[in-house]
Amino acid sequence: MTQHPDLADPLRPQPDPGGAGPVAGGAVTRRRLLGVSAGAAAAGVLAGAGGAYAATRDSQPSSPAADPLDAEVAFRGEHQPGITTPAQDRMHFVALDVVTKNPDELKAMLTAWTKAAERMMLGGEAAPGGVVGGGPYNVPEDTGEAYDLPPSNLTITIGYGPSLFDGRFGLKGKKPQGFEDLPAFKGDDLDPARCGGDIAIQACANDPQVAVHAVRNLIRIGFGTVSVRWSQLGFGRTSSTSRSQPTPRNLFGFKDGTANVKAEDTERLDQHVWVQPGDVPGGAAWMSSGSYLVARRIRMHIEVWDRTHLQEQELVFGRDKLEGAPLGQKGEFTPVDFATKSADGGPAIDMAAHVRLAHPENLGGVEILRRGYNFTDGSDGLGHLDAGLFFIAFCRDITRQFVPMQRALAAKDRLNEYIEHTGSAVFACPPGLAEGKDWGAQLFG
Amino acid sequence: MTQHPDLADPLRPQPDPGGAGPVAGGAVTRRRLLGVSAGAAAAGVLAGAGGAYAATRDSQPSSPAADPLDAEVAFRGEHQPGITTPAQDRMHFVALDVVTKNPDELKAMLTAWTKAAERMMLGGEAAPGGVVGGGPYNVPEDTGEAYDLPPSNLTITIGYGPSLFDGRFGLKGKKPQGFEDLPAFKGDDLDPARCGGDIAIQACANDPQVAVHAVRNLIRIGFGTVSVRWSQLGFGRTSSTSRSQPTPRNLFGFKDGTANVKAEDTERLDQHVWVQPGDVPGGAAWMSSGSYLVARRIRMHIEVWDRTHLQEQELVFGRDKLEGAPLGQKGEFTPVDFATKSADGGPAIDMAAHVRLAHPENLGGVEILRRGYNFTDGSDGLGHLDAGLFFIAFCRDITRQFVPMQRALAAKDRLNEYIEHTGSAVFACPPGLAEGKDWGAQLFG
Repeated sequence: MTQHPDLADPLRPQPDPGGAGPVAGGAVTRRRLLGVSAGAAAAGVLAGAGGAYAATRDSQPSSPAADPLDAEVAFRGEHQPGITTPAQDRMHFVALDVVTKNPDELKAMLTAWTKAAERMMLGGEAAPGGVVGGGPYNVPEDTGEAYDLPPSNLTITIGYGPSLFDGRFGLKGKKPQGFEDLPAFKGDDLDPARCGGDIAIQACANDPQVAVHAVRNLIRIGFGTVSVRWSQLGFGRTSSTSRSQPTPRNLFGFKDGTANVKAEDTERLDQHVWVQPGDVPGGAAWMSSGSYLVARRIRMHIEVWDRTHLQEQELVFGRDKLEGAPLGQKGEFTPVDFATKSADGGPAIDMAAHVRLAHPENLGGVEILRRGYNFTDGSDGLGHLDAGLFFIAFCRDITRQFVPMQRALAAKDRLNEYIEHTGSAVFACPPGLAEGKDWGAQLFG
Repeated sequence: MTQHPDLADPLRPQPDPGGAGPVAGGAVTRRRLLGVSAGAAAAGVLAGAGGAYAATRDSQPSSPAADPLDAEVAFRGEHQPGITTPAQDRMHFVALDVVTKNPDELKAMLTAWTKAAERMMLGGEAAPGGVVGGGPYNVPEDTGEAYDLPPSNLTITIGYGPSLFDGRFGLKGKKPQGFEDLPAFKGDDLDPARCGGDIAIQACANDPQVAVHAVRNLIRIGFGTVSVRWSQLGFGRTSSTSRSQPTPRNLFGFKDGTANVKAEDTERLDQHVWVQPGDVPGGAAWMSSGSYLVARRIRMHIEVWDRTHLQEQELVFGRDKLEGAPLGQKGEFTPVDFATKSADGGPAIDMAAHVRLAHPENLGGVEILRRGYNFTDGSDGLGHLDAGLFFIAFCRDITRQFVPMQRALAAKDRLNEYIEHTGSAVFACPPGLAEGKDWGAQLFG
């Protein structure tokens, strides 16, 4: 197994071992400090300075720890983590604007981000020396709030907005054809302060403090190069991305993502999620094996919904609330039969029900991988909670997949009476990194 | 063991058992549906309709489940849950204004809230019939998004603001003497939209979706009687309230709450946290064994902090960053000795360090029980994260405890350079409820 020099550094030296801290001079990870990675420790992978990293980089999640909160997800591979990784429960998403005019600074930041992201996904501090290793007269290279916490299945996923390719950084020739901001959809009520961005970071973890720590430390590294445009905290996943997970519920109380494309569906992933080499000829070839991320902040008018009959609620979704079965059928995972009739002879699933309009059968076979989160952002000043769904989807071609789906929904989805799209952005997420590669070189070539 | 008629109701009947759902006509809890409460089930407590409730109401947490996420906390007792309960990791806090002018409606809502809160803390739906039991032509009495989730150590804590006693509801005579909004403090930058409120609900849980569900369902029950004034989601506890918990870190990366009053300190609790009978004579006697809650939304300028030397950071707090030991001393839990000198002969802990100013020794013995949460609320529109500490403290007398402490801090705490108080509220939290009692009768007598 190879070892990165950066990763082989001890996470921090011991300037003043004053308490029950780790052994001076040894390799110290957040996990080892806590003793939470018992499985890995027993396997001896923490014996050497870089051993823990090298030994746990291949599988996903790579450390079958007793507590799933402790596990690590592999940073490197064909695809980025955080797309088909079984959806963690918490998310911090941030969109950034590049504020430097110097492409070299941007490239250097992406290289620095790569190192920090790999370290943090392994449960380490953002940089060797981290919280206190730089000594009293230096600014700590890790902000410290996740110091005692395990890796928590952290994934860090990066994406680039269409605006990054506008010519400021010599990246015009790298822009994938047709990669543009979304068109306006009927009923959009977008807040410009929640739209767009040059770069996105999606951090998902089983502990929100770990996700927030990751985003914050990347922002810190990027100070002077990028600044925060908008950010969103999500507290409950709304889609499963693996058959190993139960289907979660959205804030309308319905199971969401039953028919999602899942990690196990490798053929569907190639067809609908991963960008294929032929999709991105020429300068855009860097996006091959990547995926496009669509983010939509969907405010849900939950107080209105909460005063609505069960019948209306089920009519809107086209599924029964308790089990998630298609109306007129049995069982959550039963393939939806839109020809099923109700007792009165009409269609069991309304012609404008959400499940009908969003179904591949009615969209020429279009599918996407959904990976959204519920959110609650305080109140709206009018006596209501500002809550909803931060919709995230990954797809191979936004124009052929998300756009027609959203057009169909925007035109007549019954759900529109209860929701409002308030934010929107798209990002091109490059493929995963092979050993020795970094995001700077990957984008700038 | 007694059984409440309301609690003995099955959580929902089975209108159309279409899938792998629970047995028709049996008693169904969220937990049983999932099979997550294996320990309780093995003990036979789920055999009867009300058995699960009755059997698990006495200890705290009452169900020693294998997974701590599953556990239940007792709703009834001498004190409200959510004060000395070992601090859960997530919180949803909401402040409400009463919009009705009819005291009877307010009282009826408080009575309805009691039933719903008790059910939800036990892992049940907000009302018998819950998600679908009312049938297609009724509005569901539970919003459903926590239907598949275990109790998750949910606690629901209620409090009343000074404004509730202004005469609108005949409660003037019940107002505890001296219970008023906080005075202005030096440096306050309060947003009126984040201050005050007639009633507060603090919901804490190990799963944020469970906490949000609880708050939302109480709001739904209160529709027409109360409306949301402000709300706050907290994602990581910043204080331990039990010696069984490690000390967590705030977003400045420092351990917080090392010297907190904890659940095990029963004498200190009586002295500093629980309102004693002699404190609340006459009409205010309902507050005996209650506690006063102080909420302060403290914005942290984390980007500035993140560019600050370690030495300055440690100077500000007066503790070392890694272990949390008082400067010049060893070990997190070593009692702070403010006479300790540094190498240059000056005080090891700066005269304006946070730990010095906030210490009982320098406040005439004043202590409080802190129970705050880290938050991240998107960005501030200026390229920064809107993040910080939602400070919550419980004390016996706000005027004698929190006010002098905050005056001392506001006057000269070095931390003030990096923080800003943006929200403020105080609430009188009544004592816990005995069997058969409810919040409406408790307040209105």
